[in-house]
Amino acid sequence: MRKNRLGKKIGLPPGSPLYTGSNSADTVIKMLVFDDENFQIHENISVEKAIGLQGKNTTNWIIVKGINQPETLQKLGDHFGIHPLVFEDIFNVEHMPKIEGLDGNLFITLKNLIWIDGDQLIDSEQISLYLGNNVLISFEEKDNNIFNPIIERLKSGKGKGRVRQEDYLCYLLVDHIVDSYYSLLDHIEEQIENLEKLLIENPTNELSYSFLRLKKNLMLLRKTVNPLKEEIRFLAREDSEVISEYTRRYFVDISDHLSFLTQSIDSFREMISSMLDLLMANNANRMNNIMKTLTLVSTIVIPMTLVTGIYGMNFDFMPELHWKYGYPLFLSATAAMGVIMYFYMKKKKWF
Amino acid sequence: MRKNRLGKKIGLPPGSPLYTGSNSADTVIKMLVFDDENFQIHENISVEKAIGLQGKNTTNWIIVKGINQPETLQKLGDHFGIHPLVFEDIFNVEHMPKIEGLDGNLFITLKNLIWIDGDQLIDSEQISLYLGNNVLISFEEKDNNIFNPIIERLKSGKGKGRVRQEDYLCYLLVDHIVDSYYSLLDHIEEQIENLEKLLIENPTNELSYSFLRLKKNLMLLRKTVNPLKEEIRFLAREDSEVISEYTRRYFVDISDHLSFLTQSIDSFREMISSMLDLLMANNANRMNNIMKTLTLVSTIVIPMTLVTGIYGMNFDFMPELHWKYGYPLFLSATAAMGVIMYFYMKKKKWF
Amino acid sequence: MRKNRLGKKIGLPPGSPLYTGSNSADTVIKMLVFDDENFQIHENISVEKAIGLQGKNTTNWIIVKGINQPETLQKLGDHFGIHPLVFEDIFNVEHMPKIEGLDGNLFITLKNLIWIDGDQLIDSEQISLYLGNNVLISFEEKDNNIFNPIIERLKSGKGKGRVRQEDYLCYLLVDHIVDSYYSLLDHIEEQIENLEKLLIENPTNELSYSFLRLKKNLMLLRKTVNPLKEEIRFLAREDSEVISEYTRRYFVDISDHLSFLTQSIDSFREMISSMLDLLMANNANRMNNIMKTLTLVSTIVIPMTLVTGIYGMNFDFMPELHWKYGYPLFLSATAAMGVIMYFYMKKKKWF
Amino acid sequence: MRKNRLGKKIGLPPGSPLYTGSNSADTVIKMLVFDDENFQIHENISVEKAIGLQGKNTTNWIIVKGINQPETLQKLGDHFGIHPLVFEDIFNVEHMPKIEGLDGNLFITLKNLIWIDGDQLIDSEQISLYLGNNVLISFEEKDNNIFNPIIERLKSGKGKGRVRQEDYLCYLLVDHIVDSYYSLLDHIEEQIENLEKLLIENPTNELSYSFLRLKKNLMLLRKTVNPLKEEIRFLAREDSEVISEYTRRYFVDISDHLSFLTQSIDSFREMISSMLDLLMANNANRMNNIMKTLTLVSTIVIPMTLVTGIYGMNFDFMPELHWKYGYPLFLSATAAMGVIMYFYMKKKKWF
Amino acid sequence: MRKNRLGKKIGLPPGSPLYTGSNSADTVIKMLVFDDENFQIHENISVEKAIGLQGKNTTNWIIVKGINQPETLQKLGDHFGIHPLVFEDIFNVEHMPKIEGLDGNLFITLKNLIWIDGDQLIDSEQISLYLGNNVLISFEEKDNNIFNPIIERLKSGKGKGRVRQEDYLCYLLVDHIVDSYYSLLDHIEEQIENLEKLLIENPTNELSYSFLRLKKNLMLLRKTVNPLKEEIRFLAREDSEVISEYTRRYFVDISDHLSFLTQSIDSFREMISSMLDLLMANNANRMNNIMKTLTLVSTIVIPMTLVTGIYGMNFDFMPELHWKYGYPLFLSATAAMGVIMYFYMKKKKWF
Repeated sequence: MRKNRLGKKIGLPPGSPLYTGSNSADTVIKMLVFDDENFQIHENISVEKAIGLQGKNTTNWIIVKGINQPETLQKLGDHFGIHPLVFEDIFNVEHMPKIEGLDGNLFITLKNLIWIDGDQLIDSEQISLYLGNNVLISFEEKDNNIFNPIIERLKSGKGKGRVRQEDYLCYLLVDHIVDSYYSLLDHIEEQIENLEKLLIENPTNELSYSFLRLKKNLMLLRKTVNPLKEEIRFLAREDSEVISEYTRRYFVDISDHLSFLTQSIDSFREMISSMLDLLMANNANRMNNIMKTLTLVSTIVIPMTLVTGIYGMNFDFMPELHWKYGYPLFLSATAAMGVIMYFYMKKKKWF
Repeated sequence: MRKNRLGKKIGLPPGSPLYTGSNSADTVIKMLVFDDENFQIHENISVEKAIGLQGKNTTNWIIVKGINQPETLQKLGDHFGIHPLVFEDIFNVEHMPKIEGLDGNLFITLKNLIWIDGDQLIDSEQISLYLGNNVLISFEEKDNNIFNPIIERLKSGKGKGRVRQEDYLCYLLVDHIVDSYYSLLDHIEEQIENLEKLLIENPTNELSYSFLRLKKNLMLLRKTVNPLKEEIRFLAREDSEVISEYTRRYFVDISDHLSFLTQSIDSFREMISSMLDLLMANNANRMNNIMKTLTLVSTIVIPMTLVTGIYGMNFDFMPELHWKYGYPLFLSATAAMGVIMYFYMKKKKWF
Repeated sequence: MRKNRLGKKIGLPPGSPLYTGSNSADTVIKMLVFDDENFQIHENISVEKAIGLQGKNTTNWIIVKGINQPETLQKLGDHFGIHPLVFEDIFNVEHMPKIEGLDGNLFITLKNLIWIDGDQLIDSEQISLYLGNNVLISFEEKDNNIFNPIIERLKSGKGKGRVRQEDYLCYLLVDHIVDSYYSLLDHIEEQIENLEKLLIENPTNELSYSFLRLKKNLMLLRKTVNPLKEEIRFLAREDSEVISEYTRRYFVDISDHLSFLTQSIDSFREMISSMLDLLMANNANRMNNIMKTLTLVSTIVIPMTLVTGIYGMNFDFMPELHWKYGYPLFLSATAAMGVIMYFYMKKKKWF
Repeated sequence: MRKNRLGKKIGLPPGSPLYTGSNSADTVIKMLVFDDENFQIHENISVEKAIGLQGKNTTNWIIVKGINQPETLQKLGDHFGIHPLVFEDIFNVEHMPKIEGLDGNLFITLKNLIWIDGDQLIDSEQISLYLGNNVLISFEEKDNNIFNPIIERLKSGKGKGRVRQEDYLCYLLVDHIVDSYYSLLDHIEEQIENLEKLLIENPTNELSYSFLRLKKNLMLLRKTVNPLKEEIRFLAREDSEVISEYTRRYFVDISDHLSFLTQSIDSFREMISSMLDLLMANNANRMNNIMKTLTLVSTIVIPMTLVTGIYGMNFDFMPELHWKYGYPLFLSATAAMGVIMYFYMKKKKWF
Repeated sequence: MRKNRLGKKIGLPPGSPLYTGSNSADTVIKMLVFDDENFQIHENISVEKAIGLQGKNTTNWIIVKGINQPETLQKLGDHFGIHPLVFEDIFNVEHMPKIEGLDGNLFITLKNLIWIDGDQLIDSEQISLYLGNNVLISFEEKDNNIFNPIIERLKSGKGKGRVRQEDYLCYLLVDHIVDSYYSLLDHIEEQIENLEKLLIENPTNELSYSFLRLKKNLMLLRKTVNPLKEEIRFLAREDSEVISEYTRRYFVDISDHLSFLTQSIDSFREMISSMLDLLMANNANRMNNIMKTLTLVSTIVIPMTLVTGIYGMNFDFMPELHWKYGYPLFLSATAAMGVIMYFYMKKKKWF
């Protein structure tokens, strides 16, 4: 039940962190401390431990999974100087993707989208990134371990991630999430192709569900991608204290990817709208064909039936009935009538 | 009867305060005077009393309920230097939400939206806030006591409201109203889900009413949220004399909330439009099925009936009638005809 | 006949004043000269007289009714230095509302809209205002005396109009016209409510006419309000030599009113569009119901009729006909067939 | 055949002037040399002659009709320093209206639209104006002599054209073309009225053709007017070397006219769209009426026919047949059945 | 199978060049080195060879065909200082057209569109241009030799290409591709004309396919043209280090062409939408005609049949049957009934 979820926070004073989602997993903290040479992973540590591990000349990445318990993380927010409103936004999943720079820090909140094969719908998870002084903190709403490939890459020393600072690491995370949107395009494209087939073959109730599902997926994707595009474009343009010139260039690249996604989504929307129009036209056309048949049969046969009715009457004086060739004459006349009717309609271009 | 309500003011000189709504409750004034330490509520006081109670080092909040009697409040307007046009706007409920800064004062007018369970419609109430020198005056059109939770919070000293000035108090009120819009989203979402069910099950007249109701709610919500978003965004950007830098940051937060609301409303609109398209497609589809049945039955049975008509005629000379196996032959032939018809239509993919 | 009206001016050199409307009333000039103390009205005077009456320390308002005779007014234009193109625009009613500041003068042209009760349509009249040095000239296309309430107010000394200069007077006139648009909203809202009723009760040809009428009214209103809003907003923002800071503030107020009108018009448009969609859905639904009945009756009764046809045939050898219980058997079988058909269709959810 | 017309230029080096239209008239040159006092027209002259006739203190207007032979005009382009790309654009009719200022010259290309009475369609002709140093060259694609009224006016000394320079002359030409668009609005409005009549009376195939024709006209008009409006607005705003302040004011006037045209076109589009919606609704409504009649007749008469079929059967033992009042009883029962059916449907609000 | 193509790159570190298309042709390199006097073509050379051939005072154009093997070209990227992200974009065909200036280089990626006659669809090929210091490198995805006409022109010394630098050569290539879009407009226009014919003649399934095909072509064209227009417009406006003022002027010309293309595409889209509306209206109209016929025949003949049924009954006492003129009376009455029915419907304007 979604009822009253959005309204949860009414009456609370502003700046009260409260999780507005529905995932009840415990909060788990993990920390990566590395530089060009060394690489350490600390699993399942406490907030205090994480604060203590932060090195001066190393890249520090604190990974928080599960945002169900804001109170546990309060100390983290206080220590790294996260503004109360930003801290509140981390736990409020009813939020659009946004990027906020404040007092030399950068806060990015966006959605990780996961394809659910079973019900063919996209699920959404909020990811928040806080880029502070010599630290990057990532908050994941659900337990999807989406950053594991990046951790693996860093561990094995592949890529440029190891020699760069937290801002580049932050870029890596955002880029990873945006790349994953591409695979959703594939899924949606497949759904569209299925719908196209359904549409041409046979329009049934199944079609309605497919159509609504597709629409919902597309709307969610668009809701996620469009505001993010604007925010990233803004970030990539302006001079930021926290993003180095080197990394800024990479954010421009993400911005390009998001533009492509936006355009693809718009194309999909237009395609779906065209398909719906076609469905309407096809339905009307099929109806026309059915009605033509009914009309053809009815207008030919019903008048014939009238004539048989006439000669089936029991009037005492019906001279035709006693003619020798009455019956064959009737048969010929009736058949002729049918043929004339048929050609008349043919001429009127109904068939 | 709405007739001539909008036109009420035609012919009056500008700056004539006149209530254009339909609530006839008496005007009641309440005043809160508090600082970090002390907290006083004065219920049901006169305008003169309220003016006298204003403290220099305290936060002063005058709450006016019922805007039916502009003349009563004239003195209030005069004393706090409210511009005649602003004063007029307080009583004119046919107004869009707007924020106006003038001579170091700030005037905010917006709508409080209330869900009416009975008729499933949103009701609207105008709230005006006047932030003057060392005073905040709030005007409520109807008697909904919407600010009671805030008064309670202030009384119990919870939150930051007590130590802050009138500008922060003003933010608290706006934030409270904007938060309450979220719960309307829940109601509307529920209406959409109901409509979706109605739509798939059985489209009846009930559907029409539900649909129109939903549309009206959504339009009212959008009319309320969109201009407010623009105004708040503007307020949050520019340097204002009356809003401190500290509070400005909080207005940015409201602006984010309104963006989310705007986007949700747009999603709802698109969803509804898709559902209507689907309804059309479903109707057409259902019609097709009905007509197919009619056509199937008619085209198979009517020609058979013709044949029975033929052999029911009373011609003297109809040799078939006297054949020994005429009847079974007829039966077989007719049945065969029906079967052929059926398979012909099957082949044409009508079923 | 509208034919060739728009094309009237083709081939004429630019700057040739020519009335492009259809009102043939004679031009009548009236003049108001007043200050804080004195107030004179001069009815039915000549252009020369009007020029002579202009006082230095008084507010001078020349009212021109009927713009059918540009040549009569040429001297007026010459004396007050009206630019030839502006002078031409006064008589060209095929113009959008606009405001033009030029060489310290201000030219405002807008439309007065009048509700015609008989044909439920809005009629449009062009009003031009020329605010020159120490004079305001108003040109009314038709004889509606729309400024009479203002003249009355000035005469009785009510309001601020008497102590203010021509720019404030100019504001009073524009405000009066914009206020009168509000009453049109009432009329249109009434038309929409009527349409809504017609729509739910019974869609007939009447509906078509109502719908087109409503559309035309809304389009005319929008065409009048939207450009005016832009122009007033522009005027209210920029520094103007002719509009004092005091009056500028009042134009901001008009701009707010026009925003409200614009938004209301957009809501109406959306409402109408929703109603049309609903009409379509209702039509389809009603059709479905009709067809279901036809199909129900036909598919049940036509096969029964076939059976009666069979036993009405005149074959010599039809054993069933001679069975003792043939007839009741037939009746029961046929009735059973009908019942089965009925439940089959019931199961298929057609009813 | 339009095939491959647009692709004509593929593979050619840029700056190759090539006529892309379909008019094959020879190129004819005419020249007007005049000042306040004198006025000369030179008909049918060569390029060289035209170059030689250019006076220093006179206004020089070279009129080129027929742009089929770019090579003939090359010398003209070279002498007056027309940029190769501009020169190419003169002959390329697949171009949007545009205005280009370059090196102290001004190049305007726009479309003259001509109403073709026969097929009720608008024909388009490209007009290019080159305003160089002390010369105005106009290029007309087809032989419509559209500038003849202006030449007549100049000849007779009427208007301000004679005393002004080439820039004002250039304005006169553009204004003349824009004025002629107004008459197309009249034609289109007439077409819309005809369509409205057709629509309410009887929707036939004729309607389809009218509708498509109207759409095409409106699209062509919009394609011509909208970009021109933008270009003129731009020209009217900026400081231009070639357009004097005096003339600039007149271009502002053209810009206003184009705004009115744009708005009228948008109104027409909306009107047409509403009419199409209505057509749909009317069609559905008419269908409903037809089906109601069919259903009424069928559901009343078919069951009656079933009963006659029953008593027309030849079973040996059918007691009712031998009742004395069997026949009148049957008649009454059947009639009653019909009446009941009728009232049942009446109650269900089908009629 | 498109499945998972877009998602290919997920999990890879950024800056990893990977071909995301489906063309598996080997990479072939060709190089043109020329100046005003000399002209050399080197076919099928290695990357090292190409680097060695670059002349200082010559124009150098390296043509790469087939982008299936990024690793082969890595050295090229390194030598000419192509940024890793730009280098990656060359091989990523899931990209929108874009232009990027970076460190004195210019990178242009756009689509070459090819009309496939067989399936009437547009195929897309990615073309990337890298304009570096004294070199232009072009990358073609597929083996279409689209630049051959330009190579021929350069070889024969025709046009201005030979005396100009790489930036003009770059313009020539872009212009060539944009020109080729024009021929697609012709193809699409032909498809629209065919659709229009199909639509008026007979709406069948063929129509659905044509329609979807057309929509896809138009969407692809728009997706290619619109972003390119924006990018070129931007390039043509700003001061660029790599594009000389002379060449910039030519890019403005491309920008104009793209504007015309954009507008044509929009017109086509609107035309198609109008045609679909018409199709709907025509379908409904055709349906109405069919139903009118059915209703006409049914409502006239079915009641007549009822009467024949009555006189075909076998009641013992049916006085009419024994009347002498019963039969002719019946015939006349029945015929009269039909005629009355017919005129009744005629009066009701159904025919």
